[in-house]
Amino acid sequence: MVQKALGGAGLRGQSAGETKLCTVGQSGSGLTYCGYDISELAEQATFEEVAYLLFHGELPNRDQLAAYHDTLHNLRELPDALKAVLELIPADAHPMDVMRTGVSMLGNLETEASFAEQQQHTDRLLATLPGIICYWYRFSHDGVRISTQSSAKSIAGHFLELLHGQPADPLHEQVMQCSLILYAEHEFNASTFTGRVIASTLSDIHSAVSGAIGALRGPLHGGANEAAMAMIENWTSAEQAETEIMAMLARKDKIMGFGHAIYRTSDPRNALIKAWSKKLSEATGDQHLYAVSERVEAVMWREKELFCNADFFHASAYHFMNIPTPLFTPIFVCSRVSGWAAHIMEQRANNRIIRPSADYTGSEPRSYIPLEQRD
Amino acid sequence: MVQKALGGAGLRGQSAGETKLCTVGQSGSGLTYCGYDISELAEQATFEEVAYLLFHGELPNRDQLAAYHDTLHNLRELPDALKAVLELIPADAHPMDVMRTGVSMLGNLETEASFAEQQQHTDRLLATLPGIICYWYRFSHDGVRISTQSSAKSIAGHFLELLHGQPADPLHEQVMQCSLILYAEHEFNASTFTGRVIASTLSDIHSAVSGAIGALRGPLHGGANEAAMAMIENWTSAEQAETEIMAMLARKDKIMGFGHAIYRTSDPRNALIKAWSKKLSEATGDQHLYAVSERVEAVMWREKELFCNADFFHASAYHFMNIPTPLFTPIFVCSRVSGWAAHIMEQRANNRIIRPSADYTGSEPRSYIPLEQRD
Repeated sequence: MVQKALGGAGLRGQSAGETKLCTVGQSGSGLTYCGYDISELAEQATFEEVAYLLFHGELPNRDQLAAYHDTLHNLRELPDALKAVLELIPADAHPMDVMRTGVSMLGNLETEASFAEQQQHTDRLLATLPGIICYWYRFSHDGVRISTQSSAKSIAGHFLELLHGQPADPLHEQVMQCSLILYAEHEFNASTFTGRVIASTLSDIHSAVSGAIGALRGPLHGGANEAAMAMIENWTSAEQAETEIMAMLARKDKIMGFGHAIYRTSDPRNALIKAWSKKLSEATGDQHLYAVSERVEAVMWREKELFCNADFFHASAYHFMNIPTPLFTPIFVCSRVSGWAAHIMEQRANNRIIRPSADYTGSEPRSYIPLEQRD
Repeated sequence: MVQKALGGAGLRGQSAGETKLCTVGQSGSGLTYCGYDISELAEQATFEEVAYLLFHGELPNRDQLAAYHDTLHNLRELPDALKAVLELIPADAHPMDVMRTGVSMLGNLETEASFAEQQQHTDRLLATLPGIICYWYRFSHDGVRISTQSSAKSIAGHFLELLHGQPADPLHEQVMQCSLILYAEHEFNASTFTGRVIASTLSDIHSAVSGAIGALRGPLHGGANEAAMAMIENWTSAEQAETEIMAMLARKDKIMGFGHAIYRTSDPRNALIKAWSKKLSEATGDQHLYAVSERVEAVMWREKELFCNADFFHASAYHFMNIPTPLFTPIFVCSRVSGWAAHIMEQRANNRIIRPSADYTGSEPRSYIPLEQRD
């Protein structure tokens, strides 16, 4: 017998398996990675430490972390055939399509031959994803073939250096560390669940990650920070923002960057990235974008009791660091690939193919009518 | 509250949504597409008719089918940039990685700008997938840049003509029609479910289909006919097959092509493809492969009450048509893309993001220890 969908469509509130990696909305500020509160990690750790934690279940010691930095640093160069593919992708392509294709192509060139290689391919993806997006972006937009090596020790600094062609401002690198930590992992969200379903057929890691990228691409998932930016960049004062938001609410327009499928009263990531957005606003001499953002937050809470999720203040924070809006979601990929890979490894360690059933609502059994007899 | 996983892991027996497209294991021979029994479709319809049925819910009349053939025929040419990408993929790549990358690249070149275009992109995928795999295969293996046009009216004949460089034997085209119909659709299997999860974020069709290809690639899903072929091709008589199978059973080896996650007593697709395998065996002067296959089927039933699924006699049938074993699963893609697309359209028509929860089994909350203080 098929168990009817409980708790509504979309499997909401239904368990689809077990995880040791993350809790969402259960304790403390509401988000933990392997037992650690997101606020402690975001304020004290680096992204590489957090990635290590997700893969191994424990934080690295100094030697382990240093070795891990070396490993990642040595994996940054892209294969020539991958660069050639990126050069074939036009400038007006969707950057998430570029990420998905880059990972898929890498799977042709460096195929995961056995699960014993999964950590090595994971590290390779972490090390190359900033290069994949920046190589394509700089080639297609500026006609430049960049080196995908950089002087930066961290993935955060590496991304910023590849994008801007110069070592990152230390403040920007610090903000990017925080951002990558906040986006690293979030339990059975749609892209991670996609990765686990693919992994459950015992497919390879490039298949699982390219599928996850495709899911994250959707506007109901990873695209919210870009949508928030597209909205707030039009407004030049808090007053204008309030007027426009009130008009959007009156029209029942969808306002991106607010509310959450799991969190009910706040998104614990918001305060963390909001504080950095404020610092960047001050450091860059911003005249209105932060004020606009704060006002939108206040109006949304006052009018609808809707809170900012992780994406809303990411929009202004990224903008202050001169990151083009179309690259916001690809940064999410550079981070979340850590969570995806950890879930893929976890799925493989205790696997059963994920194959649900469906409630049939279609036609009753009927007889085939030969083509000649159809109207 | 999170609803605990019912019916075991892998969401087995749990409904993850509604569908009008397919029943598996509910009535008649056990598999229906839009109310039509698989045996009637496989014996009387063409693959294009079945694809039309899945997309529109009704079989086409003569004019509709003729128009649909024209549409598909005119969409076969690959973009130059896609061919260039395929030429960059080495001969030893996994053919499913090629398919995944081909679809992903097409998404960069012909991006789905709105869901109003979904049928047009679906038709493009149906028309180009045989060309994607055959262009790469012939270029990487034979150094030939084939035309992706052919004289064939059907997708079945088109695939065979591109692969072999000459119009298909009519018997082979007929078998391939049947094969494409049998593999077209199968409810919420793992690859289709992958496509629906991706679609549920409102992502584009190339993301959903490339994710589904990645899931189908796994040996627990689409790879079974290749694995069956790899097994039976070693044996030159029914007697040898019986001896070897008995030894494999004694060693508790996994034997691919038998049993099913949903069907309990038989797979309705088996008898249909088995009959064609027998005809091909007679037509090609086969000395032992069909006899080997029949004996394996008999021994597996006698010893384990395990029945052949759709994949087992596909192995010999494809082999009799001179299809290289690594292309077996890509043919599955050329067919199942119809079911995937129909499910993607259905998901979009009544969407809620698919975002389940998880049972947390990890570390209790713990405090962050600064790097300097770790052992």
